[in-house]
Amino acid sequence: MLISQLGERGLIERLRRRIRTDSSVLVGSGDDCAVLRFDRKNYQLFTCDMLVEGVDFTRGDNPYLVGRKAIAVQASDIASCGGIPKHCVVAVGAPPRTAVRVLDRLLEGMLEITKRFKINLVGGDFSRANKLVIDVAMLGVVEKKNLVLRNGAGIGDIILVTGSLGGSIKGKHLKFTPRVKEARSLVESFKINAMIDISDGLMADLSQILKRSKVGAKIYEERIPLSREAGGISDALFSGEDFELLFTASRSQAGRILKRFPGKIRAIGEIVGRKHGLRLIGKKLSEKRISPLGGFDHFR
Amino acid sequence: MLISQLGERGLIERLRRRIRTDSSVLVGSGDDCAVLRFDRKNYQLFTCDMLVEGVDFTRGDNPYLVGRKAIAVQASDIASCGGIPKHCVVAVGAPPRTAVRVLDRLLEGMLEITKRFKINLVGGDFSRANKLVIDVAMLGVVEKKNLVLRNGAGIGDIILVTGSLGGSIKGKHLKFTPRVKEARSLVESFKINAMIDISDGLMADLSQILKRSKVGAKIYEERIPLSREAGGISDALFSGEDFELLFTASRSQAGRILKRFPGKIRAIGEIVGRKHGLRLIGKKLSEKRISPLGGFDHFR
Repeated sequence: MLISQLGERGLIERLRRRIRTDSSVLVGSGDDCAVLRFDRKNYQLFTCDMLVEGVDFTRGDNPYLVGRKAIAVQASDIASCGGIPKHCVVAVGAPPRTAVRVLDRLLEGMLEITKRFKINLVGGDFSRANKLVIDVAMLGVVEKKNLVLRNGAGIGDIILVTGSLGGSIKGKHLKFTPRVKEARSLVESFKINAMIDISDGLMADLSQILKRSKVGAKIYEERIPLSREAGGISDALFSGEDFELLFTASRSQAGRILKRFPGKIRAIGEIVGRKHGLRLIGKKLSEKRISPLGGFDHFR
Repeated sequence: MLISQLGERGLIERLRRRIRTDSSVLVGSGDDCAVLRFDRKNYQLFTCDMLVEGVDFTRGDNPYLVGRKAIAVQASDIASCGGIPKHCVVAVGAPPRTAVRVLDRLLEGMLEITKRFKINLVGGDFSRANKLVIDVAMLGVVEKKNLVLRNGAGIGDIILVTGSLGGSIKGKHLKFTPRVKEARSLVESFKINAMIDISDGLMADLSQILKRSKVGAKIYEERIPLSREAGGISDALFSGEDFELLFTASRSQAGRILKRFPGKIRAIGEIVGRKHGLRLIGKKLSEKRISPLGGFDHFR
């Protein structure tokens, strides 16, 4: 069997089953970050992601924006667990005939995000490779009481999203601002039950919350905030790399959140029993059941 | 200018100069690991490394051994700071037509080392790539009093090395055991002044210690422990990936160390003033000055 047949998520599930961790690990693979014991009040968050030329960016993309994205993606993962990004290490693979100027620009883009969010870039490694590959591993910290995972959504919860969705491929995927401040405001002032960042597409990432929380969801098509760049509703539902926060909270908490962030956070649906699966409610109240595995898969 | 002209170390120096970190970072880039504040008694160590098909391993290499190496290289970096490896995350880039069996074997090799050294594999990420790329980021912990860096070598120190050197390309580079236990015995029972693992070659890595410690060294050719696979003395001096520990200690400490590890650790030279540079003393006491930048460079 080839990994293209098993798919990215199938592969992760297959490998996860074989891994054991000790009691210092609260959450291993399967969430946006690993959650590790740290001190009396805080957990440490640990995550990594690889960006590959030809997949996550193209040779023609501005290296400044590629570097920026490499760091921003990781900060977004830390944010979606409610945490504060702290330190990162960067490994870069590059062809020997790469201009030094390209790596200078790559670093400058990285530093835009590390400076803005006070993240320490504490180490790096260079390798020869035939295409540009950038891997960033990031550490963050989150107060125990503020940790949010994918598995806490409960029936009756309202489903909310920051910003607007769709059309990210036209540029936002390289220029987005990780929702660190928004996530921190949310976990500090409200009770957030489950959260994820939208990297594989709204429906695919919502499916992750549903699967881990063992619940279903109804999403109202007309409530979904479309970005100006979105090609249409299916673009907002299924295309990836919006890097907005998707989260759930009780009805009363959701009401307070919407009042606090008018126009910036929207309610798009509600959590229902698992047996309902994931349903999209159209404008004329038509219901459509969505395959839970829609969305971007690296190997399909 | 191309990165092949600047070289790997030139590139690292260039980028290092532009990076600022806050007071939670004791050591940023420039040592085997970053050293971060952790708790009253311990520092946290953080490091990452990328292995690329065609550079660090070939398509014909057993994926089990490649996975094993990816983790072992990181454990070796933690060990060379005197620390205990604790947690790691793994990012893998692979062509979609890779057999699932290859990734299974890769994971099995990783788990050999994580189990042996009780390291938690806490997360991962898969990407599409046109060649196999594996990046591992690892966290470790070291008691403040046991931290060893590259910059502590003093004039009069004896230079010691574990195991034997050279010919690693014939197989050891894929099968070596990271010197975690040896490093821990050393830092727990003795005063080690500077330490590094030999990844780029004895002379290149020793040059790193000399540069950071602002000292010189004399190495006695006939003292260098040659492995059976070594093609000759220059192989032991300049070829990389032995992953043995290279370290310095005072003369009296070195005497005690050699008594404790007979045949396993050897004295190969001594630290002298910076003005002497790095000198190789031949069998007939001929002296040869070594260019400090010998050894493997990813971009040259």
